[in-house]
Amino acid sequence: MMSKKWVKLITSLQHKKYRKQHQAFLVEGAKSVLELFSSDYQIQILFVTEEFHQQHIRLLQKQSLPYEIVSQQELEKTGVYQTNNACLAVVTAKPNQPIGISGNEYMLMLDDVKDPGNLGTIIRIADWYGIRKLVCSENTTDFYNPKVIAASMGSFTRVQPYYVDLAQYLKKINGSLPVYGAFLEGEDVHKVPFAKAGILIMGNESQGINPELAPWVSSKIHIPRYGAAESLNVGIATAVICDNIRRSVD
Amino acid sequence: MMSKKWVKLITSLQHKKYRKQHQAFLVEGAKSVLELFSSDYQIQILFVTEEFHQQHIRLLQKQSLPYEIVSQQELEKTGVYQTNNACLAVVTAKPNQPIGISGNEYMLMLDDVKDPGNLGTIIRIADWYGIRKLVCSENTTDFYNPKVIAASMGSFTRVQPYYVDLAQYLKKINGSLPVYGAFLEGEDVHKVPFAKAGILIMGNESQGINPELAPWVSSKIHIPRYGAAESLNVGIATAVICDNIRRSVD
Repeated sequence: MMSKKWVKLITSLQHKKYRKQHQAFLVEGAKSVLELFSSDYQIQILFVTEEFHQQHIRLLQKQSLPYEIVSQQELEKTGVYQTNNACLAVVTAKPNQPIGISGNEYMLMLDDVKDPGNLGTIIRIADWYGIRKLVCSENTTDFYNPKVIAASMGSFTRVQPYYVDLAQYLKKINGSLPVYGAFLEGEDVHKVPFAKAGILIMGNESQGINPELAPWVSSKIHIPRYGAAESLNVGIATAVICDNIRRSVD
Repeated sequence: MMSKKWVKLITSLQHKKYRKQHQAFLVEGAKSVLELFSSDYQIQILFVTEEFHQQHIRLLQKQSLPYEIVSQQELEKTGVYQTNNACLAVVTAKPNQPIGISGNEYMLMLDDVKDPGNLGTIIRIADWYGIRKLVCSENTTDFYNPKVIAASMGSFTRVQPYYVDLAQYLKKINGSLPVYGAFLEGEDVHKVPFAKAGILIMGNESQGINPELAPWVSSKIHIPRYGAAESLNVGIATAVICDNIRRSVD
């Protein structure tokens, strides 16, 4: 059975305040936890069902980490997932360390993306398109929110976040890399000659990119529309633009 | 106040069985209902809050449709939305009529897409990319599910669904249009010379396209991966492929 101490900690980690305080977060479900094993994240403790234990006993022994066998009901009662017949890990969060730019890769920058599902999806897309650096405005949803972790489908282990004031960050970089941003009046992404390296800024779900950042955008772009939908979801738009970047650069 | 008769009908329309029986469905929220006004869907009755009524009184009078003013609490109690401060409509569903193919447009075909959020997102993407025909396998989630309607952000008014046995449908068409389907071993979508018109099949979230349909696929395609994510969500993949089709064809 899960001790009271752990139940209390796990429940508290559903809130950002306590994640900051404990420098820890939750990872739930088989897929995400198995991805953790091959990452550099440190698992403080792992709770597994008897079923998961039997299926992965060798892997668990190889990891040499503290784990306890609990019931499915306990996992579901303490975690965020409504159904979880596999596992839950308490993991040490990484400190918010500055991410530097480099001249041979793309970086994704998020300006106040609010929905945890959208952020998780964007992390998965970044991972698919080989983007490892994610610079987020301070009002972007917390990377370690359990819903973000779940929606990223394990990709959170390969994408490094950095929360910072975007205007100041862009000011510091001062044009050393091209900065692409989605704006209604931007150039058709099918025709943009994307550079080998750069920064792609995606804006808030309803407000788009903060006007304060516009002066730092060297290339305004947009996804052409062929029908009548008013807009695309920010995750969808991120994927389409990343695909166009890769297609143009390769 | 909402009469018992309407409360009972609205509650029942959250279930597919009763939507079929009554040939009706629910549309909730200002954005979706305003899109209904400019569509050919028939609104049986509209429940609005005092706030929505005041904001849109001219539009409501122009529509000449039956409406009643109710409280926000009533909308939230009877509808699916947890918060709805605007409106809820009971709308007549369209019969499941066959969709024919044509030589100058693309059609989207869904093979057992299960998640209502994914289906709604796909409808919105189809609408963005100017695809108006959506042929769905009989096990694909119901187009008129309230969660599908909500996720489509009004695009359900411009995309026509048809539920049918896909193998039989494809057999009938018998190669008169190119059929593109996403498979792991497919050709890179960045390099496929897409035809001016065709069918794009997207498969189930975890199983992909049913092997039974493979013989009808004339061109297997895939989205190239540059990083390590195991897969892309079906909505994301649909958007990226549609974008590549439009880019290639235009």
